[in-house]
Amino acid sequence: MRMAELSAASGVPVATVKYYLREGLLPGGRRVGPNQADYTDGHVKRLRLVCALREIGGLSLAEVADVLGALDAGRAARVVLGVAQDGRVSGRPVPAAARAWALAHVGRLLGEAADDADAAVANLVTVLAVCHGLGHEAVSGRLAQYAALAREVAAVDAALIDDVGPARRPAETALITTLLGERLFAGLRHCALVDALGAAPAGA
Amino acid sequence: MRMAELSAASGVPVATVKYYLREGLLPGGRRVGPNQADYTDGHVKRLRLVCALREIGGLSLAEVADVLGALDAGRAARVVLGVAQDGRVSGRPVPAAARAWALAHVGRLLGEAADDADAAVANLVTVLAVCHGLGHEAVSGRLAQYAALAREVAAVDAALIDDVGPARRPAETALITTLLGERLFAGLRHCALVDALGAAPAGA
Repeated sequence: MRMAELSAASGVPVATVKYYLREGLLPGGRRVGPNQADYTDGHVKRLRLVCALREIGGLSLAEVADVLGALDAGRAARVVLGVAQDGRVSGRPVPAAARAWALAHVGRLLGEAADDADAAVANLVTVLAVCHGLGHEAVSGRLAQYAALAREVAAVDAALIDDVGPARRPAETALITTLLGERLFAGLRHCALVDALGAAPAGA
Repeated sequence: MRMAELSAASGVPVATVKYYLREGLLPGGRRVGPNQADYTDGHVKRLRLVCALREIGGLSLAEVADVLGALDAGRAARVVLGVAQDGRVSGRPVPAAARAWALAHVGRLLGEAADDADAAVANLVTVLAVCHGLGHEAVSGRLAQYAALAREVAAVDAALIDDVGPARRPAETALITTLLGERLFAGLRHCALVDALGAAPAGA
């Protein structure tokens, strides 16, 4: 298909498609004339993935490039998931006392897996430290329950990755399952909490 | 405290604090001179909340203003949570077939609560439709499991809101619990999934 058709099929404006081509997020089409190239369904799928990572996953363009680079290099699912976590740490410094408090709680929760150099662990520590700064330390009393449920959700994620099987690269399935799954799960949780608050006078 | 101290205590640059004052996100201080005002711990807390909503919650400044407006007006927790969902729908149009497919699945899941005019439901439908567009329809086979676990997580959220009790406005607690809790839970889920993928050869 031509550029105009690629744009229509993916819902991405031509100027944006050209920008993604220049940035290397989208491989070039097969050249069929001095100013024309032919694109495939693979290009449409790639554009949809870029948009999903940006708009639903909340990744910046640079982060999308890093994640796609890891995917294209055939890195393992857990490596790709790690790259997707890299950009998500808030840059704001949190007070040392709040960070120490958060690190102690995350350490107790994850045991020896609590390596602060890991982006996912650093994210957890930052979010928890911000809760502390907001006077929301009570969350620490519920962390073990959240962690236990997170393990159950991750087991469903792993089963879903198996459902899809080798028809898709497991790393890509894992990425979609977690980045889009994060928003999906948050939506389901929101609906359930609104129900729960409606049932209890405390939330009225 | 003076403006410089407010900036130091909150970690927010003076220029940004002044901007938030002009935008009405932060109430003015008590005037103590022609060019001086006095700020309180309440101002520090408010600045921390604005930063958390922006940087961890991923809300835009306009969305933060809407959410704080609902909080300040004393709206119920579920109303404030709904306002926080409003800005989160991706603007990109999804193909009608994908949307219909997603709406049918969400309808089956939520029953009569599946009102597409509700921002949270619209978000769910959009995320699911994007999964469809990515060829990730298999997620629909796991939706009921995710929804059941989301109800368990929401029960922990509701318990946490009760833990904090009336010392804080329940709507503010609910907001922190869900917006920061979303990132916290995603981090825990990520760590658990990386563990699970490490244990199974499929993820290697």
